[in-house]
Amino acid sequence: MNTTLDVNVSNFYQITIAQNSSNIGGALKKFIKTNAVIIHDSNIPSQNIEQIEQSFVQNGIEFSKIKLGKAGEGVKTFEHFREISEKLIEMNVDRKTTLIAIGGGTVGDFVGFVASTFMRGIPFIQVPTTLLSMVDSSVGGKVAINIGHYKNCIGAFYQPKHVFIDVSLLKTLPVIELVSGYAEVLKYGFIADAQFYEYLLQNAGIFTAFLENRNFTDETLAYLMQIIGKSCEIKASIVSQDETETKGIRDVLNFGHTFEHAFEGIFMGKLPHGISVGIGMICALKYSKISVEEILKHYDEIGLLFDIKQFCEQNSEKIPNVEEILSLMLKDKKNEMGSIKLILLEEIGKAFVREEKAEDISAFLSQI
Amino acid sequence: MNTTLDVNVSNFYQITIAQNSSNIGGALKKFIKTNAVIIHDSNIPSQNIEQIEQSFVQNGIEFSKIKLGKAGEGVKTFEHFREISEKLIEMNVDRKTTLIAIGGGTVGDFVGFVASTFMRGIPFIQVPTTLLSMVDSSVGGKVAINIGHYKNCIGAFYQPKHVFIDVSLLKTLPVIELVSGYAEVLKYGFIADAQFYEYLLQNAGIFTAFLENRNFTDETLAYLMQIIGKSCEIKASIVSQDETETKGIRDVLNFGHTFEHAFEGIFMGKLPHGISVGIGMICALKYSKISVEEILKHYDEIGLLFDIKQFCEQNSEKIPNVEEILSLMLKDKKNEMGSIKLILLEEIGKAFVREEKAEDISAFLSQI
Repeated sequence: MNTTLDVNVSNFYQITIAQNSSNIGGALKKFIKTNAVIIHDSNIPSQNIEQIEQSFVQNGIEFSKIKLGKAGEGVKTFEHFREISEKLIEMNVDRKTTLIAIGGGTVGDFVGFVASTFMRGIPFIQVPTTLLSMVDSSVGGKVAINIGHYKNCIGAFYQPKHVFIDVSLLKTLPVIELVSGYAEVLKYGFIADAQFYEYLLQNAGIFTAFLENRNFTDETLAYLMQIIGKSCEIKASIVSQDETETKGIRDVLNFGHTFEHAFEGIFMGKLPHGISVGIGMICALKYSKISVEEILKHYDEIGLLFDIKQFCEQNSEKIPNVEEILSLMLKDKKNEMGSIKLILLEEIGKAFVREEKAEDISAFLSQI
Repeated sequence: MNTTLDVNVSNFYQITIAQNSSNIGGALKKFIKTNAVIIHDSNIPSQNIEQIEQSFVQNGIEFSKIKLGKAGEGVKTFEHFREISEKLIEMNVDRKTTLIAIGGGTVGDFVGFVASTFMRGIPFIQVPTTLLSMVDSSVGGKVAINIGHYKNCIGAFYQPKHVFIDVSLLKTLPVIELVSGYAEVLKYGFIADAQFYEYLLQNAGIFTAFLENRNFTDETLAYLMQIIGKSCEIKASIVSQDETETKGIRDVLNFGHTFEHAFEGIFMGKLPHGISVGIGMICALKYSKISVEEILKHYDEIGLLFDIKQFCEQNSEKIPNVEEILSLMLKDKKNEMGSIKLILLEEIGKAFVREEKAEDISAFLSQI
């Protein structure tokens, strides 16, 4: 059984949340005009790709395939952008061809950007394969590549024709990636929906059981479809009010991320994104003077870290000092000189944006 | 005295047509949030750039400048795209910075594409400096770079915040570029406005006098503002009905261009675009069974060529045979297998699109 969700951006599209990929061809057929090019990286198990191909064949969809030689942020380089664009020319891709991105966030970002620029824009469909990309990059239309260290420096706002989420792909996803994605799920509760937050707290047991046994009971499936659907719904509601990020409404999606960027900058590549987001959200919650007792208990249950010191101790890393963190927070492109835009909570489920003086944040960081 | 023209695309903007650049700063100030980066190539006389800079200073606009090391299609390479994007990072350009493209069509295409992708899109303003770019790339939002021989293969539909046309820049524009741009002006009469076509025929003397003496009498100025304004108005009306070229309405803008592409392909770099367009339009007119007698007289007056044989004789080139022309026409990306989409005229001022069989076009080409 599939559920669908509307995303009301300028080019309206829907998200299908399915329990497996066996019907993906049937679900996508109507969005493919003439033919498709499936683009995926090597992170996705080959049996998953084969199942998708099989379903395409069964539904009479004409397609070719590109397997990316790189993975992770390595996909999103300038050279790779040129290489894949040239490959599409060689393959005689035209304006009617649909690109299908199968993979995590980086594959979606990259293929989406290629699609947005090839012949001034050709259709693309996203098939996110990680929990993080299912709840984050499925909605928002942000596509991009990097220039050197400058992440997402070259990009566009470009909406997919459709997003197909297959929760069964989570069965083989590494635990760390599930926990990492979960931090973003929790974020949606914090910023926009106290009821959803309560649901997550009450049903933590289903998630942790799944982390251990990877069994797809009916309860697990219903739970996964619920948390993914709700996350996408909340993000879609925010994004549809501020599609090109010009009104400040989307800012709340950065809850915890201002701190997180600094942590990720310090521990380049060693600190998983979701874990870093989790720690960043605790900082933002404390700054908002929200009681975190219950939340810390939940973090512990799930396996999220709540303090950067925890991460340093576990990994024998030097604890960063306040100056280091602050200087990286100030470098963030979203901040004006000397002040930092923080996303804070009035209460759980209600986020707001406030410019904070660097010295106030410094004092806060020294205390925690 | 300036005139302004509305372009009703999704992001509404206006075109200012001015008699000189001395007030450009005043006209653009309101479109620049914080600061600007002027980007131009070496084709534009330095006194023109200086006048623009002076006006920016007088109006208190904060700006920096990039002079492109290349010109023409050489500007629109992948490497150059990366180089200039990196330069913008070094210059600390942020989302509020406005890029100002000063130059012909290639500079507008290139800077527009850089603006469309930098940080997912920053504002840009176009200051076209050739007759062709004033009447063509001022309207349409088509921005792009090339991959090797594949022209405009990577691009976007991205609208400028404003277009500032200074007709006085035409004073120093080479004759061949004026004549070349004129072919596109004439095109607008052919496809959409019989009255404008009559106006052009009746006032040819003003244009040819200007080609000779480069004198800006009041009559010349009024004439230039009229032909540029009318051309932009016709293109804006067509583009606003089909902004992203999905409805086929924009096709009529390719009048004469299907033949033209083949000619330019054969005489790579030797046949100026506008001259080639002029010859292509005569082909399309004859195919449409429109009497060309009066038009040929007008071509002769202006200095446009009406036959590819004329060009070959004047330049000691081999006359291409029908097969050569046809195979290049079939390669055009806008054509389906075996048939060619031609833009034809019912009468002057009324264009329509028709799929023609390759053999019919072949028979036609053998006769003319």
